[in-house]
Order: sequence, then C-alpha cells, then structure tokens
Amino acid sequence: MIERNHIDALTGLLGDRGVVTRPEEMEAYETGARYDRGSAGAVLRPATTAEVSGAISYCVRNGIALVPQSGNTGLVSGSTPDGSGTEVVLSVDRLTRHFELDLDNRSIRVDAGFRLSDLNRRLEEHDLFFPIDLGADPRLGGMIATNTGGSRFLKYGDVRRNTLGLKVVLADEAGTVLDLDCDLRKNNTGVDWKQIFIGTSGAFGIVTECVLNLERLPKQTATALLVPASGAHVLPLLNAMEERLGAYLSAFEGMSKNAIAAAFAHVPSLKNPFQGGNIPDYVILCEISRTWEPREGEQPLDAVLETVLAEIWELEQAPLADAFIGPPHETWALRHALSEGVKHLGKLIAFDLSFRRGDIMAYCDHMKAAMPEKFPGVTVCDFGHIGDGGVHFNLIVAKDSPLLTDPTFEQRLREWVFTVAVDQHHGSFSAEHAIGRRNQAIYDLYTPEKLKEMAAGLKSFTSPGKLGSVRFG
Amino acid sequence: MIERNHIDALTGLLGDRGVVTRPEEMEAYETGARYDRGSAGAVLRPATTAEVSGAISYCVRNGIALVPQSGNTGLVSGSTPDGSGTEVVLSVDRLTRHFELDLDNRSIRVDAGFRLSDLNRRLEEHDLFFPIDLGADPRLGGMIATNTGGSRFLKYGDVRRNTLGLKVVLADEAGTVLDLDCDLRKNNTGVDWKQIFIGTSGAFGIVTECVLNLERLPKQTATALLVPASGAHVLPLLNAMEERLGAYLSAFEGMSKNAIAAAFAHVPSLKNPFQGGNIPDYVILCEISRTWEPREGEQPLDAVLETVLAEIWELEQAPLADAFIGPPHETWALRHALSEGVKHLGKLIAFDLSFRRGDIMAYCDHMKAAMPEKFPGVTVCDFGHIGDGGVHFNLIVAKDSPLLTDPTFEQRLREWVFTVAVDQHHGSFSAEHAIGRRNQAIYDLYTPEKLKEMAAGLKSFTSPGKLGSVRFG
Repeated sequence: MIERNHIDALTGLLGDRGVVTRPEEMEAYETGARYDRGSAGAVLRPATTAEVSGAISYCVRNGIALVPQSGNTGLVSGSTPDGSGTEVVLSVDRLTRHFELDLDNRSIRVDAGFRLSDLNRRLEEHDLFFPIDLGADPRLGGMIATNTGGSRFLKYGDVRRNTLGLKVVLADEAGTVLDLDCDLRKNNTGVDWKQIFIGTSGAFGIVTECVLNLERLPKQTATALLVPASGAHVLPLLNAMEERLGAYLSAFEGMSKNAIAAAFAHVPSLKNPFQGGNIPDYVILCEISRTWEPREGEQPLDAVLETVLAEIWELEQAPLADAFIGPPHETWALRHALSEGVKHLGKLIAFDLSFRRGDIMAYCDHMKAAMPEKFPGVTVCDFGHIGDGGVHFNLIVAKDSPLLTDPTFEQRLREWVFTVAVDQHHGSFSAEHAIGRRNQAIYDLYTPEKLKEMAAGLKSFTSPGKLGSVRFG
Repeated sequence: MIERNHIDALTGLLGDRGVVTRPEEMEAYETGARYDRGSAGAVLRPATTAEVSGAISYCVRNGIALVPQSGNTGLVSGSTPDGSGTEVVLSVDRLTRHFELDLDNRSIRVDAGFRLSDLNRRLEEHDLFFPIDLGADPRLGGMIATNTGGSRFLKYGDVRRNTLGLKVVLADEAGTVLDLDCDLRKNNTGVDWKQIFIGTSGAFGIVTECVLNLERLPKQTATALLVPASGAHVLPLLNAMEERLGAYLSAFEGMSKNAIAAAFAHVPSLKNPFQGGNIPDYVILCEISRTWEPREGEQPLDAVLETVLAEIWELEQAPLADAFIGPPHETWALRHALSEGVKHLGKLIAFDLSFRRGDIMAYCDHMKAAMPEKFPGVTVCDFGHIGDGGVHFNLIVAKDSPLLTDPTFEQRLREWVFTVAVDQHHGSFSAEHAIGRRNQAIYDLYTPEKLKEMAAGLKSFTSPGKLGSVRFG
C-alpha cells in the first residue's frame, strides 16, 4: 500500500467510496477479467471529471504512478498494476453520470465508466446502438484506449470512427482537463487532439467523457454459414458478397475447423449443420442486415441472401462449396462459443493480429504448415474478422505437453508468431487490444526510433506524470 | 525571387523541371483556384518522396519558408504564398507515380499529386471509387491536409475515415521521411501519428503518398427533391428517411430558396420542377443508392424511394409538404449549379460552417432574421450537408451596396458570422477547409491556450522549419 498520508489526502479529495485499500476489495482491480494479476498500492474511484483531475494532480505532484483501468477485459496487460504494489489503479468505474442523448444528431455524450452493454441496453428504446460488437463487455474508457473494432467493423468501423469528441484529464501537475468533447461530425479547426488518446492505452491522458456516434438498430437480419471452396477462395467469396450486397453485409467472420470443433465439444447444445457432422476446414459466418422493418413488396432478407448465394454458386470458379442459411441466434451461437471452446483444449496463448485482407489466409496456412516442426504439439485454433483483416490467432498447448516445462518456450513462440506476421506477411502485432506490458517488448522492437522520440515528446507536454502500464517513448 | 545560389542548389536537387522561377509560370501557383493571390519566391515541384525530402532539408537548413500546395482549391488561403515574395511554394503536382491497387483489400497506395477526378476515373473499370464527393477537383495531398468531407459524408464519411496510411516528409534539417503508410484496417500499435497530418494544412509535414480505402461504385441511384413542411421539419424528415432507408441514404442536402433561385437565374437549362415555378423556402435533395445491379424480384430503387416517401407522407405531423422524384443527373444538376449561381449575384463572402445536425436550421434562421438590421443589403444564400451538419453559409453583397466601400465591413461581418455560430449555436468555424491565413485570426480567438501550447510542442519535434501558411501554436 502507498503511504498513509497519501491515502488520507486522496480520501479527502475523493471521499471514502473513492479510495479503496482493503486487500479483499482491491483484488477485483488487481485481476484482469481474462488474464493477468498484479498488486495495487491503492485503487482510486473518482466519480466526476473534477475528481479525476484532483486525484491525478495529487499523484503527479507526489510522484505516485497511476494505472488507468476501465473494464479490464483486454489481452495485453494494459490496465492492471504490476507486481510492485506501488502503482495506484485509477478506475473509471464510477464515472457514470452523463448520459445525454441527442436524437437529431444521432450522438450521445456519456461518461467513460459505462459498460458497452449498459449503454446499448439504454439506447434500445430509441432504436439506436453504439455499433461496436464485442465478445467481452468493456467500459467505454477502455474501448477508447484500445480502439476496439469487433465483429461488425466491416459495416460500422472501429471506436475511432465512431468517436466525435472526448474529455480528457492529463497527468500534469494541474490535472489539466482538455475539453475535446465536440459533438460535431465535421470540424477541422486545428489538430484533432482526441486522436492521440484513442488506442494509446491511457498513456497520454485519461478519458472521462466521450461523445459517440450512434447507429440505428438492425430490424432485419439474415445469416449463413458458408464453406469456401478452399482457403484461396475466401477472399473471392468476400469480394463476390461485397459486390452483391454492399452495405447490407454486416459481418464476414472466418472460423477454422479446430476452433469450431472445440466449440462443438465444449457446448453440446450447439447445432452442427454440416453434412454428416463433418466440419469443413474453414467456415465463414456471413450476416446481412437492414435497419428498417420488413415492407410490403420487398424481398425478405433471407430470400435476398439465398438469391445472392445462388448467383455466387453459378460463377465460373465458384468460391463457394456449401452454404447453410440459418437463424441468426443459432449461427452466432457457434461464433460466440469459439473463445470458450478453445480455452478448454489446453493452455491458450492468444494473439490479436491483423493483415491486409488478402494476406490473412496465407499467414494462417503458413503457420499451420510450419507449426508441427517448429513447436510440435501446438494447435492453431484461429478465427477472426476476414472483412477487416483481424485474426484471433489462438494457439493451444496440450496440458501435458513438455513445452510447458520449457522456460524459453512461450517467449520463443511469441517472437516467432509476431515476426512472421510483421516481417513476412505485412501484418500488425496488435489489431484491437493496443499496447500493454504484455506486448511492450514487441512494440519496442518494431517501432522506429523517430516515432518513439515523437511519442516521448508528446508525453512530455501532455502527461509528464507516471501514467499507464506502457512506455511509448 | 529567392537568392540565385538557392535556386541553383535546389535545381541541382530537383532538376530543371523541379524548380520554377519564371513569373509567367509561377503565376498559376501564386493564384488560388477560387480566391487569393500571393507572390512566390520560387516554386518547387519534386517528383518523388526522396526529392521532397531533399528540397525540404535544404530549405530548412537555409531558413527558407515553404508553403505546401496541392490542388489549391480551398477557401482559407491555406496553400498560396503571402505577398512577401519570400515564401517558396512546394507543389505536390508532380507526385503521380505510385498507383498500386489492392483489390482484395479494397485499398490503393497512391501519390499525393493525383487529382480526385483522375483517381476515380482510373478506378472506374474496377467498379471502385474514393468516396469523397466534392464540387472542386483537388489533389489528394490537399484533401488530406483539409480533411474534406463533401456531399456523401453521410454514407461514406470524410477523408480521415478513408485514410489507412500516409507517407510524410517532416520539415526538419534531415527532411525526415515518416513511413506511416500502413495498409491495414485494424492496427493499434502506438500513437496513430497519421492523424496529426490530416486536417492540419501541411503545417506538421508534407504528405507525399497515401493508402486509401475504396468503396464500390453505386450501380443504382434514385433521387428526389423534397419540400419539408417547414424549416423545423427538416430534421424530422432526415430522421424519418434514415429510419426507413439506413445505409441506402447517400445524400441529404439542403438548399435555400435564394441559392436555388440564383442557380435557375444563372443556368437557364435547369428544369424547375416546382409547382408554378414557385421555389419553396427550403428544399432537400435526397439520394439513395445501391452498389449492385438491379436483380429480379427486387423492387427498383425509384419504387423504394416512392414507397418510403408515401410512408412519411402518411405520418402524423408529416414533415413532408411535397416531393419530386427525378432522374439523378437532373436533380444533381440543380445542386451543382448553386455555387456558380450564387457567385453571379454579387460579391460572395463564403463561410464553411458546421453544427450539430439539429442546430443548422436554427442558425440559418437566426442569421436570416438578424441580417437586414445588422447588415442591410446582404443576402443569405445557404446550402449544405444537413446529414452531417455542414453548411455552406454564403453571403452576397449587392455589387452597388455602400457596404463594399466601408473598410471595416467584411471584418465586422466575418466576426459576427463566426461568433454567433460558435458562441450561440455550438458550431464550428471550419467544417472542411481547415485553417489557412484567412481564418488564422478566428483560430487564434477560439483555440484554448493549452491546445496552442500543445501544437507548438508538436511542431517543435516534427517540423520545426518554416512550413505552411498557418500558425497552430
């Protein structure tokens, strides 16, 4: 724990509810929702931007290191304290006061502590939603700090695209509040400073409030599981779908045989639609949707999907080998069971990579072919967002594998996965989890010196205090 | 002209074609396409990123001020030299070598010197386009430096949204080249540095190359002119259209009676569809489009539009008073004639403002009501992009108005327009032309000191040399 006098001073600023020091209460903030475990010097839970500013100012003036924390659902140790017990967690979980909907502007001004699910539940009655579709249920501050994308990026884009404005507190001696909380869609009046706080893990300032673009809720949805003729046909299939469906297409998700098999094994209630139950090597979940109620004279969406698939089927060198149109909840149930299923196969080492759309399958094929020799006993259970190039590249090590007792194994594996992705397949080592302690080394390796210098410069005049679990400069 | 020894050195770096000093050849670079006229010390026309780097390095080391210039079609004197004759224009017009299309990724890597029209002409055979729809025909570098939006922002967003990567040359002694030319859609591996070069008028570096998102060309389009029941019904009408048309809706443009009348007067070939030729107070151009060819069993797009308008007509408190479905080329001909028409009415003083969508009409009404007393003889001829909040707020002063001989008039008018927009209607004083000499004063007035400090900091470690016509710090 940090010194008593600091606790007292911070309690004076934030009140009793705003400062957590009892170990059993701190534990939830020391533990990542999926991975990771650290030790906090205290947990601060300010309830307003002014309180955030006061707390940050105090900590900067007293040299106390802060780790911003939101939903803590990430993969890269971006929001948990290290093991030292000296870092203080600054949680946004009590920042839930502003909820100002502007229906004409299709936007909302909302505090950073809201969970995505809460936000969307409250928007439902207005037929609106914040269109970032994720497996986890993060809070908004963390979504901004990682620039999450999710399963419907293809149609709606990422958090960056859907953020109109931010309110940010800098880690300087004054705890300066930056009002970047513009609610305009067009505004080019200088540097768009909000951009430097998106996707940078809170290192340059803590987002307390945001103005978000909202989209209309889909009222009609149709889904299918598609079997591409081969891995090389995945992109031609995507292109054929985009050509014929335009903005109807709202998801085009790839799932490998291994990942599907794991889901079926772990969730027996899932329906296996494949002939004879034989899982194909690779399956695409495609979704099309429309934001209006069915209208007379209009082809139902299932029929549209059927027509389009029939057209694609008729193409010379048809990219499609099989297709199963099914109800959206069933189709998505399979997709959503992949993560859970894969976890049960053994020790999971998860990567969040991205590629040019045309390079995804080549990377996965390359790794699957090389794995048995390079790391025997490691299974690739990839799935991902083919429409935008993102891949959840999941590796499973059997629980009894001798690799797990090799102290160099995980480090070697990580290096290989990252370097092949970046050096040989033009990929990114972090698609939508940004940077945290866990991928600091790979950031250091691949970031040009000039950009590190620029990041250090930026840090020096925004948040010179100790903020965040990651070093960009 | 700058000193002979500098001309010789720069000619050594760029070749004869790369350095222009003859007054009659420089004139085109000293004159804005729409406004503005300055005097250049020389014009540099590098043909590669390496040449840009060499030229910038030389100029920075020798204290020569550079003004980056692209299509020079802007409104704010962002890309013409001042009157001193000491500023050197750095034109990107010869940067037209790279044109690397990635069909699977739906993206292109292309040099900054391409004109928008050239880019889109070459993309047409692939059924693709760069979806920024503008009246002017800028080059890509300038589109990035101003973050243009245009008439189809509602569907496709602005340049920022459609830019995947940039190559930038900094104005430092080395002429450092930053490779931010990533072609990934998801990539969160640090500060997204490209963002600081978008919409900042070239002050932080010169974009030489970009990677752009492409969209599929519409294959079906339907348009209508809509007469809202009143100004207060414009937003309910937009909301009703969005609710029923979702991503079909590709334009929702507002046109004031004055602007339409000017277009009809100036372009007699335009068809006047309104009853008895009486122009309503305000008219909306709406466009819906689909990216696929008409399919059997599918309602044609004109019929979809008709159905939707009929539904809206039937609403209680219907926001619609009249509607004219017409062929797209005719409908757009009216919209595209507005700028030209307005110019012929008198002296044009043009503003590019933006508001929350719900605030546009209130601002325009406020100004129209106040104008006769405040500036008698000034006519408001506004039109704009209601779907995204942008307004071309055009003011016309009759050619014989005594105001034109009042030396304080234009300054007073500008101040009034801007301050009412920003202070009373939460608007932006620059929607999509960014900042140049012409709106420097308003930038200085409305930008918080802290953000100016941050801009000065950013400038110091990116482009400390003299670059651009505007001072952000």
